Amino acid sequence: MSFERFLVEVRGFLEENQIVLDREHLSHFSYDATERQYMPQVALLPESTGDVSRIMKCACLHGVPVTPQGGRTGLSGGALPVRGGVVLSFSRLNRILEIDEANMFAIVEPGVISNNLQIELGRRGLFFPPDPSSTVDSTLGGNVAENAGYTRAVKYGVTRDYVRGLEAVLPSGDVITLGGKTLKNVAGYDLISLLVGSEGTLAIITKITLRLLIRPRVRRTVVAYLNNLPEAADLIVAVFRSGIVPCAIELMDNIAINTVADHLGAALPRDAAALVLIETDGHGKEEVEVDALDITNLCRQSPGVTEARLAVDEAEAERLWTYRREVLPSLKALGKDHLEADVVVPRYNLPFLVRFTGGLEHSDAIRIATYGHAGDGNLHVTILHRRRNFSELEEAYRLLELIYRETVAMGGSLTGEHGVGLTVMDYLPMQIGGEALPLMKRIKAAFDPGGILNPGKIFPD
Amino acid sequence: MSFERFLVEVRGFLEENQIVLDREHLSHFSYDATERQYMPQVALLPESTGDVSRIMKCACLHGVPVTPQGGRTGLSGGALPVRGGVVLSFSRLNRILEIDEANMFAIVEPGVISNNLQIELGRRGLFFPPDPSSTVDSTLGGNVAENAGYTRAVKYGVTRDYVRGLEAVLPSGDVITLGGKTLKNVAGYDLISLLVGSEGTLAIITKITLRLLIRPRVRRTVVAYLNNLPEAADLIVAVFRSGIVPCAIELMDNIAINTVADHLGAALPRDAAALVLIETDGHGKEEVEVDALDITNLCRQSPGVTEARLAVDEAEAERLWTYRREVLPSLKALGKDHLEADVVVPRYNLPFLVRFTGGLEHSDAIRIATYGHAGDGNLHVTILHRRRNFSELEEAYRLLELIYRETVAMGGSLTGEHGVGLTVMDYLPMQIGGEALPLMKRIKAAFDPGGILNPGKIFPD
Repeated sequence: MSFERFLVEVRGFLEENQIVLDREHLSHFSYDATERQYMPQVALLPESTGDVSRIMKCACLHGVPVTPQGGRTGLSGGALPVRGGVVLSFSRLNRILEIDEANMFAIVEPGVISNNLQIELGRRGLFFPPDPSSTVDSTLGGNVAENAGYTRAVKYGVTRDYVRGLEAVLPSGDVITLGGKTLKNVAGYDLISLLVGSEGTLAIITKITLRLLIRPRVRRTVVAYLNNLPEAADLIVAVFRSGIVPCAIELMDNIAINTVADHLGAALPRDAAALVLIETDGHGKEEVEVDALDITNLCRQSPGVTEARLAVDEAEAERLWTYRREVLPSLKALGKDHLEADVVVPRYNLPFLVRFTGGLEHSDAIRIATYGHAGDGNLHVTILHRRRNFSELEEAYRLLELIYRETVAMGGSLTGEHGVGLTVMDYLPMQIGGEALPLMKRIKAAFDPGGILNPGKIFPD
Repeated sequence: MSFERFLVEVRGFLEENQIVLDREHLSHFSYDATERQYMPQVALLPESTGDVSRIMKCACLHGVPVTPQGGRTGLSGGALPVRGGVVLSFSRLNRILEIDEANMFAIVEPGVISNNLQIELGRRGLFFPPDPSSTVDSTLGGNVAENAGYTRAVKYGVTRDYVRGLEAVLPSGDVITLGGKTLKNVAGYDLISLLVGSEGTLAIITKITLRLLIRPRVRRTVVAYLNNLPEAADLIVAVFRSGIVPCAIELMDNIAINTVADHLGAALPRDAAALVLIETDGHGKEEVEVDALDITNLCRQSPGVTEARLAVDEAEAERLWTYRREVLPSLKALGKDHLEADVVVPRYNLPFLVRFTGGLEHSDAIRIATYGHAGDGNLHVTILHRRRNFSELEEAYRLLELIYRETVAMGGSLTGEHGVGLTVMDYLPMQIGGEALPLMKRIKAAFDPGGILNPGKIFPD
């Protein structure tokens, strides 16, 4: 690797204000929501696909590592430059290039903030379902790279389900164009699905074509409180067996409820073992109302439910959803460190997973908060500890591994939406055995023979 | 390649009745729905994943080509052994291994006939949306290999959207297990999406885990007749812009209408330029009824519509759908040869594509029938000709190329659901330019370095 020669070449075609070298400004590009930190040698701010292509050609020639970076809201460390080199920041490739109302597609650059697209679409009565909690900071490029999930995935699927076209720059600097504004396409291998969720390790995404939906006109939210956490999981399974497909089913345990109540000063029942939020949506007011009432009645008849009711108006619904979105920020505000298992199990195993995590023996210094997208079987099991206290840190990792082992034993996955990145990397062989990991590495090599793109991610050494 | 030594080894672990060598029985494995024919040297009938693994180990060692084969209903030649060698038939790996009602998943072997799964699911009130026209003969393994589409894709998506787990045998004989009964999973690259639609060129699928839905309780079908084909395409675009999401919108042109009327003795209006079938479904009777009435009214107000009405009962709806499904068999029964373009365009371009195909100058000997999944922008443009008449054959191919060029110019895809196989292979570079095809070939090599799996498909030389 010859970083100095790389830099000389890059200066030949980028403006000085596209190149960040001083330590103070560089530190901005060194961390993400995992709160881990790795300093890059330089941050480059491309303004066009041509810039990205030229940067990659130079990086390829000189063997310089390149880590693409969006809003740095990732929870698995995917955007951290662990091997130094270049951070490629998409802050200036942030234009909504087209909103095609007739075909119901949008074309965006990767640096567009997720929520900015939602606002533009909302004005047109359109809708892009994937809407992660980090939507006001996260970028669409990052959402695509991580195949972001979100609360409405139960009904509407995840990011991959909406990406129909991509422009991407290969590590060689070659630009490829895949798919477009068509709903179906089986011409050749599905490289789009492969790139979505590849965590920036295969190619640099420079344009994204997204399928859109008509915005549902009505939504209703049901809230239920239970005095028993495993029965909350039972309730979630029961809702699906009724045949209704809600657009979101979320769970908060007692620790999450109390932490949010403290943090936001919210009037939440502090004794409840679980809060379950269920949202239905649709185009017809009556049909949504009927579903919401059916769900409310089903909740009231379920074991462990102490209270279940419809949110009286949109304002109350929005307040309830704010409580849910504020779980992670509230847990962070506790000042404790947290290790989070983003685990998914087959939905029917949810009660068993919750029973397992609830029964985990651990010291009083450690607390385990559980919340998340229970309707998908996807929970964020959060182990609160102090990482500067060695025995607590050790115990937290012991608990994390136990949760991972149980998840795999239940036929689940170690990560439902956060990605592998750094945080899950060492555990990946627990889930993916045999020839599958070596095969993934061969696919990585087919894209990136020099291993310069986001090195040190996904694959354990 | 040493076919003889391969055969000696295979005889060591397969029973005689799993090995087909005589020409008469072999010819059964030599053709598919393209009506092209290539003789294999042997057909092998594995009865377990172990059989497949051992066969692949031997084939890998001796460099023998292996072409996996399901129900041979493919329309792109994906299951034809163009380089001879082995046909691996899945006729004996045809068990429904599990229908997990609680988690709403099914696990099947690749040789299960698609319709047999539908019947089993129907008994349980469950539903696997992908249901290709060939459902009574096609296998689920074939559906997965080709990422089969079908009429309901408009609302429910295609096969890839339902495959959540796969067991597959690599060309080396190694068995890999991917995913499972979880709704979300971002652990490593999405090899499942890559294998779905890879047309049997990357790995041999031996087990499939499919996500299921609750069967919609109600469906209503609207039929509209028009005196103008491009206005039928306009109508389809208008339905979507109204905000209703039908589960199917299908189109038949005048030639398709008359051919079906002749073939089935059906009382169809022979003067109509177009027949549009629109189906809505759901769980609530009223909501479906309201949507169906709204669509009927929208049809009645649309230019070119001469008649639009709701099917009076399920029997009439089923009859209308039979007419649609019988288009291809009826066209085949005409005794003419057909070249079919399985093209997709952005939905709003549909009227322009239909105008283009309608305006194509051609001799009286040739006719162009258009029908298909218009709701997805996916049409099967069928050029009827006599292939033993050289000038007609040449003209048919000239027309096919013109249709392909226009499709690509409109931002479309050369194949929406049939796959590339043999039939689209030579045209693929029109759509996929630059480094994307070489990249796909490197991915092929990452799976199959010896190039023994379904050789001579997808990639033009």
